[in-house]
Amino acid sequence: MAKMVGFGDYLSRLSPLGYKRFIQASLYEVNYTGAEANVCVSLACMGMDTEFVTRLPDNDVARAALSELLKYRVRVDHVAWGGERMGLFYLEKGASQRPSKIVYDRKYTSIATASYEDFDWDAIFEGATHFHLTGITPALGPGMPELCKRVIRKASELGVSVSCDLNYRKNMWTTAEAKACMEQLVPYVDLVIANEEDADKVLGIRAKDTNVIAGKLSREGYAEVAEKICSRYGVKDVGITLRRSISASDNEWGALFHTGGKPYFSRTYPIHIVDRVGGGDSFAASLLYASMTGMEPQETVEYAAAASCLKHSIEQDFNLVNEREVALLLSGDGSGRVQR
Amino acid sequence: MAKMVGFGDYLSRLSPLGYKRFIQASLYEVNYTGAEANVCVSLACMGMDTEFVTRLPDNDVARAALSELLKYRVRVDHVAWGGERMGLFYLEKGASQRPSKIVYDRKYTSIATASYEDFDWDAIFEGATHFHLTGITPALGPGMPELCKRVIRKASELGVSVSCDLNYRKNMWTTAEAKACMEQLVPYVDLVIANEEDADKVLGIRAKDTNVIAGKLSREGYAEVAEKICSRYGVKDVGITLRRSISASDNEWGALFHTGGKPYFSRTYPIHIVDRVGGGDSFAASLLYASMTGMEPQETVEYAAAASCLKHSIEQDFNLVNEREVALLLSGDGSGRVQR
Amino acid sequence: MAKMVGFGDYLSRLSPLGYKRFIQASLYEVNYTGAEANVCVSLACMGMDTEFVTRLPDNDVARAALSELLKYRVRVDHVAWGGERMGLFYLEKGASQRPSKIVYDRKYTSIATASYEDFDWDAIFEGATHFHLTGITPALGPGMPELCKRVIRKASELGVSVSCDLNYRKNMWTTAEAKACMEQLVPYVDLVIANEEDADKVLGIRAKDTNVIAGKLSREGYAEVAEKICSRYGVKDVGITLRRSISASDNEWGALFHTGGKPYFSRTYPIHIVDRVGGGDSFAASLLYASMTGMEPQETVEYAAAASCLKHSIEQDFNLVNEREVALLLSGDGSGRVQR
Amino acid sequence: MAKMVGFGDYLSRLSPLGYKRFIQASLYEVNYTGAEANVCVSLACMGMDTEFVTRLPDNDVARAALSELLKYRVRVDHVAWGGERMGLFYLEKGASQRPSKIVYDRKYTSIATASYEDFDWDAIFEGATHFHLTGITPALGPGMPELCKRVIRKASELGVSVSCDLNYRKNMWTTAEAKACMEQLVPYVDLVIANEEDADKVLGIRAKDTNVIAGKLSREGYAEVAEKICSRYGVKDVGITLRRSISASDNEWGALFHTGGKPYFSRTYPIHIVDRVGGGDSFAASLLYASMTGMEPQETVEYAAAASCLKHSIEQDFNLVNEREVALLLSGDGSGRVQR
Amino acid sequence: MAKMVGFGDYLSRLSPLGYKRFIQASLYEVNYTGAEANVCVSLACMGMDTEFVTRLPDNDVARAALSELLKYRVRVDHVAWGGERMGLFYLEKGASQRPSKIVYDRKYTSIATASYEDFDWDAIFEGATHFHLTGITPALGPGMPELCKRVIRKASELGVSVSCDLNYRKNMWTTAEAKACMEQLVPYVDLVIANEEDADKVLGIRAKDTNVIAGKLSREGYAEVAEKICSRYGVKDVGITLRRSISASDNEWGALFHTGGKPYFSRTYPIHIVDRVGGGDSFAASLLYASMTGMEPQETVEYAAAASCLKHSIEQDFNLVNEREVALLLSGDGSGRVQR
Amino acid sequence: MAKMVGFGDYLSRLSPLGYKRFIQASLYEVNYTGAEANVCVSLACMGMDTEFVTRLPDNDVARAALSELLKYRVRVDHVAWGGERMGLFYLEKGASQRPSKIVYDRKYTSIATASYEDFDWDAIFEGATHFHLTGITPALGPGMPELCKRVIRKASELGVSVSCDLNYRKNMWTTAEAKACMEQLVPYVDLVIANEEDADKVLGIRAKDTNVIAGKLSREGYAEVAEKICSRYGVKDVGITLRRSISASDNEWGALFHTGGKPYFSRTYPIHIVDRVGGGDSFAASLLYASMTGMEPQETVEYAAAASCLKHSIEQDFNLVNEREVALLLSGDGSGRVQR
Repeated sequence: MAKMVGFGDYLSRLSPLGYKRFIQASLYEVNYTGAEANVCVSLACMGMDTEFVTRLPDNDVARAALSELLKYRVRVDHVAWGGERMGLFYLEKGASQRPSKIVYDRKYTSIATASYEDFDWDAIFEGATHFHLTGITPALGPGMPELCKRVIRKASELGVSVSCDLNYRKNMWTTAEAKACMEQLVPYVDLVIANEEDADKVLGIRAKDTNVIAGKLSREGYAEVAEKICSRYGVKDVGITLRRSISASDNEWGALFHTGGKPYFSRTYPIHIVDRVGGGDSFAASLLYASMTGMEPQETVEYAAAASCLKHSIEQDFNLVNEREVALLLSGDGSGRVQR
Repeated sequence: MAKMVGFGDYLSRLSPLGYKRFIQASLYEVNYTGAEANVCVSLACMGMDTEFVTRLPDNDVARAALSELLKYRVRVDHVAWGGERMGLFYLEKGASQRPSKIVYDRKYTSIATASYEDFDWDAIFEGATHFHLTGITPALGPGMPELCKRVIRKASELGVSVSCDLNYRKNMWTTAEAKACMEQLVPYVDLVIANEEDADKVLGIRAKDTNVIAGKLSREGYAEVAEKICSRYGVKDVGITLRRSISASDNEWGALFHTGGKPYFSRTYPIHIVDRVGGGDSFAASLLYASMTGMEPQETVEYAAAASCLKHSIEQDFNLVNEREVALLLSGDGSGRVQR
Repeated sequence: MAKMVGFGDYLSRLSPLGYKRFIQASLYEVNYTGAEANVCVSLACMGMDTEFVTRLPDNDVARAALSELLKYRVRVDHVAWGGERMGLFYLEKGASQRPSKIVYDRKYTSIATASYEDFDWDAIFEGATHFHLTGITPALGPGMPELCKRVIRKASELGVSVSCDLNYRKNMWTTAEAKACMEQLVPYVDLVIANEEDADKVLGIRAKDTNVIAGKLSREGYAEVAEKICSRYGVKDVGITLRRSISASDNEWGALFHTGGKPYFSRTYPIHIVDRVGGGDSFAASLLYASMTGMEPQETVEYAAAASCLKHSIEQDFNLVNEREVALLLSGDGSGRVQR
Repeated sequence: MAKMVGFGDYLSRLSPLGYKRFIQASLYEVNYTGAEANVCVSLACMGMDTEFVTRLPDNDVARAALSELLKYRVRVDHVAWGGERMGLFYLEKGASQRPSKIVYDRKYTSIATASYEDFDWDAIFEGATHFHLTGITPALGPGMPELCKRVIRKASELGVSVSCDLNYRKNMWTTAEAKACMEQLVPYVDLVIANEEDADKVLGIRAKDTNVIAGKLSREGYAEVAEKICSRYGVKDVGITLRRSISASDNEWGALFHTGGKPYFSRTYPIHIVDRVGGGDSFAASLLYASMTGMEPQETVEYAAAASCLKHSIEQDFNLVNEREVALLLSGDGSGRVQR
Repeated sequence: MAKMVGFGDYLSRLSPLGYKRFIQASLYEVNYTGAEANVCVSLACMGMDTEFVTRLPDNDVARAALSELLKYRVRVDHVAWGGERMGLFYLEKGASQRPSKIVYDRKYTSIATASYEDFDWDAIFEGATHFHLTGITPALGPGMPELCKRVIRKASELGVSVSCDLNYRKNMWTTAEAKACMEQLVPYVDLVIANEEDADKVLGIRAKDTNVIAGKLSREGYAEVAEKICSRYGVKDVGITLRRSISASDNEWGALFHTGGKPYFSRTYPIHIVDRVGGGDSFAASLLYASMTGMEPQETVEYAAAASCLKHSIEQDFNLVNEREVALLLSGDGSGRVQR
Repeated sequence: MAKMVGFGDYLSRLSPLGYKRFIQASLYEVNYTGAEANVCVSLACMGMDTEFVTRLPDNDVARAALSELLKYRVRVDHVAWGGERMGLFYLEKGASQRPSKIVYDRKYTSIATASYEDFDWDAIFEGATHFHLTGITPALGPGMPELCKRVIRKASELGVSVSCDLNYRKNMWTTAEAKACMEQLVPYVDLVIANEEDADKVLGIRAKDTNVIAGKLSREGYAEVAEKICSRYGVKDVGITLRRSISASDNEWGALFHTGGKPYFSRTYPIHIVDRVGGGDSFAASLLYASMTGMEPQETVEYAAAASCLKHSIEQDFNLVNEREVALLLSGDGSGRVQR
């Protein structure tokens, strides 16, 4: 049976209630998140076997954080304990023309200072069929690009299918640093995942006729981007989310899946946003679900677009939907009528 | 002076805060509800005399629930005490493409196991001009169809005007069971109320050119449905709500009132939903208000559509608006400008 | 360096949580507000020097309220202590077709019963370049029109630039009373600010081809209104907000700035409303910011429209945005994409 | 059957959550209260017939407040509508050595400016057997002493039994004013109620060997006080609560009931305080309950002490306990073991 | 390695916030509980291997409830799905002289209607060393005594050590029913656990010189009770909690462990109660922990008393303390000084 | 006029609501704190002039934190901006035998990596009469002992009176490191402040006949400790808090002030704890208040003990009481009677 392993950061997200700004906050809603952890949870909610690997400091808050993954049936048996701190970020939720704002506090964390030897990779990959990583993990600390390269190579050698979400974060490294690192990783990757900006920022491949800020996206442009990623790096499959940002409250959402040299586009969903953080991770999870269950290309992109569309209606970073709920939306029922 | 009596279930609704899913909930907002109780409260808020009849277990939670009706000036003097439990349901609020979800826990309740003799119907109907029932009440338990038939016949004999909202609930009985029961009740009913699906599910009368899931409704189709209900069962008036479900966040809302052989349609309202549960009950209440205060047909349907449109902007199941607030919307001011 | 002084009421706002109606409320969110205080806070958030003057009763609640202004770096060194009470109002937040509702309780307050001599105006105006007042302040109590006239004349004599937001409140005085008072104040005013209704209600100058309730506004009509205010009262500049109220949830927002005999219009923003109270005050603050920093007319109206557009996405009455956040929106990025 | 009428103020209480100080509060818990209203609610919870009379402004907040009394089955059919405002007070809850703090804002209220003619006293007293007033009501406004005198005389003439809780409030009037007024009212009173300070402050009758601040109370001293009230004013019965304030968290609580020339003392309860506001009102209600149900003197004082002891464990001002819950404590079970 | 299996009910607990009564509640804090589930969680927090077995209806609320056990590392692999409902109870938290109140709604649940064949007992007991049951489980439904007898016999036959907490609930069955059932179960039990009332209510063995309501407990009396349970039913070990209920806020807490014919008493702890529900379950868990880790008798009773003392300071039903935290208290540090 | 300057860390405190453990928390109450900042706020609440100096990263969360000091009138004009992060700690509130738990995350902060040159010390000390530091500040980072020595010497040279709270934190440095550093600082200190453990841990001076864990404190022992600090380091005054920890809920609290070679003891307060964090800081602030206002020795220790006693009844770390509230307690009224 298929089993997916994710490796990366796991940190606290602290958000003022509702649309309060930081300066108005006397309460923070806390949840625990991390790009690869989010993918594990989403897959687990769809019934898949997953394991999440990270490094955490040995204290009660980190243990509390980890227990949230257990709740959603993600295995955490190979988490390494040590280091000085768990990361966190503060998220102020935007609305209408006011964007959401994130303040990072994720340096010097236990994972950022981890070494390859902190983990028993042979045990970790035993029984694994898929390995997932994002561009955030190598950006966490100076030793992480090398560590990630070793891990991804190890997975590749063991015949584990590797997926990587480019996930560029400008506050963590420069585009030059990202490119230097990611160009070494991508050749080992079977499935590259990106949003409407990542390929440009990380690999320097820009979609023509597209202006993300102005909310203008070109389907043809992104098909070309995917094609180039495949041909330049020998990648098999590419998935790209296509988000048209109308405002912090309203987006349009669709996706492209490129495989076998051909692009497949999903339908487009107009979305009223509850919480958009984790949208990309839910897309990656859904592509992996499609891969692990053997879906056809068009089915794959529709499933992934629908599942990640639903994420935007769910609070916090985990995409807590199961495969039956995605199927309901895929069947054409996005009417939101009460299910009783 | 007019007085309306409602008879039915009264139960707790437990909802996670905001858009949280059940698995994320550590707090439940509680309110007390029931289709006929909701109608009583809405009418009471418009200044009408109402009484609600149900059966509740003799415990502190049921008494707390009942006190909420007192707060809104609904009389509860003939509530029967006994039985084992008060029902409840859990409601997870949907958004965008994610539908709201309801988990019922309303079996074996005091009302579901009630008998005709638990109530003093002569005292209950003293001074009553209107009696309201919904299709939920006979679905509550095995003895309830017979009990409802006796009550509705009693009301009819006493010259009390009878209204019935078909209110089909697929988790409570099958369409076959519903039809078998409701076809016996409807002939005693003066005013039949339904939503865009009920007539099809309960009486087998389907609107042509209509696809509720796809959000396509035909005005002519529903006029025909109303006509058929009148002619087939000898019903005098029919009110039908016409909800076009765009998503869990946005709906279009209008209504049809059929009387004297002619259909009257209201204007259509685009609605941004705060809480849509109880929307149908607020429509029923408004039709009764129109009847109790002697409105003309077009005035009736416009009043009922406007009042129930406002319900969607109000949290929880009661339509807490008064007749002056409905009049403001009817006067053309749906601009939502601050009233100070 | 420029410094602005505001003078007016300062009171508590009590709002049920979310979209709860008053009768459903067991908790009130409290914040402290006042038209001129809001302008001070908004300017202070943009880095300007401001001082707010009012009169408050000597008790712990008033002191707590005042400390909120300190938090945002507004000076309060000349607040007068005395009188019997601090005002308050209750605000029920509307949604969709249901309007927000305000219940005032602001009579007999310390500021309403203040006298000119309660304040040391020479000290207050020392170093001040701008003085801001709204039409609410003279409406607070019987002695206030005279007091305001003296203050505004004093400011004028000292060469302080005077701005006045007409801000008509029908629950505080009649249009006749407002006109009698405001026509005496306006001749001393350099910058008159109004919303789409104020000029009509206070000065009897109505925009042609406009129906506020129906959501129809004429640009030409408002250019004429501004022109008339300038010519009739010798006012130099006029700023008017143009709000098209679609519903309590959705508005369109833009503005007109009239100076040097010519109207300048901003772009129009479709707004999904978080909290619209204080929108006009944030516009006034932004016009003052433009004046204090020497912006060109078109730049002025665009800045003020953008800043006050953002206010609608912020909870409570203060416009807690800084000049960099306004610049981001002005640069064309209203896409609401996450800032991380 | 016995029926009690209460007349007095009805106002909002706004309390920061938990033990927060005013300056820390961003949320206020709201409840509605008033000395006589509290007595009505407590009696209603014990199954008695009650009616509360007050005057309120015609707005949504006052109507919401009033609906809380309906919830507890208190009748409000003769409330007068008019005037300008409903009163309120802010309550900061103390703990340990830090006392609770109250900031009053109850001037200029609808009830403070009421006149005798605003109410239909004949209708109000129809069927009434008991009338209850406190020393707060005449202190509300300049016309209130006279109004209260007329009402109390009216009640007396109609053979209605009159009870009066002295309830001295130093922020509302001076001891001289209180004495001047109350000495005219007390001769019409059948049952005088007081706490450990009132008789001294209002009537100038001080208990010997007692120092309230130091937590020293003399039983004999209070027996003398009660005796003097009876002999000096011709009062029949006197009830006095004996609170030994150890800290804001811990009190000792007991009571004295003086009737037929003899004092009866209750047992003393050590209390861990949840909310002590309304403790005196719950004592008054319990004395009235004893009177309305015909208890013996010792039974009376024990019942009243036990019921009001329980009040201290209940949040907000209403004593939401029924007669069976009081009986459980009277039976000797104050062990607080879980009732399941 | 030792592994414990628990079998029983799993239900929702709904509690008004703080000390609110049911009638004041608009929010319920929800947690999931069950006597045997609580024991599993407590043992898992101390690092033990546990599995909980129950039967639940196939719906989202039950799945959400179950995920809480996963969070605390309790296995749930053999839960049976089916039946109609999950039970629940409402808990109103008492304070001072006012007792906590529980309203049960746990009839007709999936577990109450379970049959022996719903579970794969061979798989369940594979690797198990301990099996825990309480007197609540046989009381759940008419078929449960027989089912429990078969399960307990099965465990016994497999050499699994059996513990049983008598846990009498008067609202679930009579003392006669309890005795008839429990006397058949106890002979198979190795460790009997009881509180200060259970042995009397269930087995008719009463401690002399003891009055639970008056808070009077006799150590000698309870030693005799334990002795009698051992001799009469052939039980090896008996643990009894000794709670002296001073009030709902304050208790004294200690325990007796009887083994090898001798009683061992723990020290007594004065407790300021945060939440006492689950106190007995935490005691049972700690006795099992002592057994699974091979503690001496005196060490056992001290550990169990200390661990369950700590439970009273923890909100909700699970005893979320680990063995190091118990050791800190055992070392004599109950001073509550901040651990930083 | 006297003015006090504090220098040190400023960080977020995140606490689960009520008595929830970390693993139960989905919300964190946030407040901002720091030993010297707490002293500044307490002094400012008593009307004193204060300034707080720290270093913070340039982001919205740090700016929000700083605005809280402005709210309480503490000046922050010389805060240095730069570095990478603001520190934080998580606080789990204990009760009864369960201690509060703190998880630190305060390494690599902007203040921990500050240099002497980041601050304009001449400007900072202009007008200052008092400088306050705690033992936490030198423990923040490797360069901090040297920085603190330079600052304290600078203050001393400028004739500014220096106070230092030893404040030992075992998670920040060893007793050896603390001693090495503090022995160099203390000779420059005029007033040394310590709790019942600090002198032992930091300076190796232990009170005889004392066992802090067992709650046994010897007055004579602490008088000797103070005497030794004075004689060994040439310190003028010493203040020591004497906390007897009965449990996490109940403490006894008193203090010793040693000056002119003589010890002065305050009365002892039994305290029911709301929040004890910041108790020591409030004591330091009160000693400084006494010094700044010229109190006598006995008056000083009584004032400081009373003020810091009140702190324990106030939520979060700031001692939000003014000098009149302390005076009320000093006058003998600790009865906690409602102030209205």
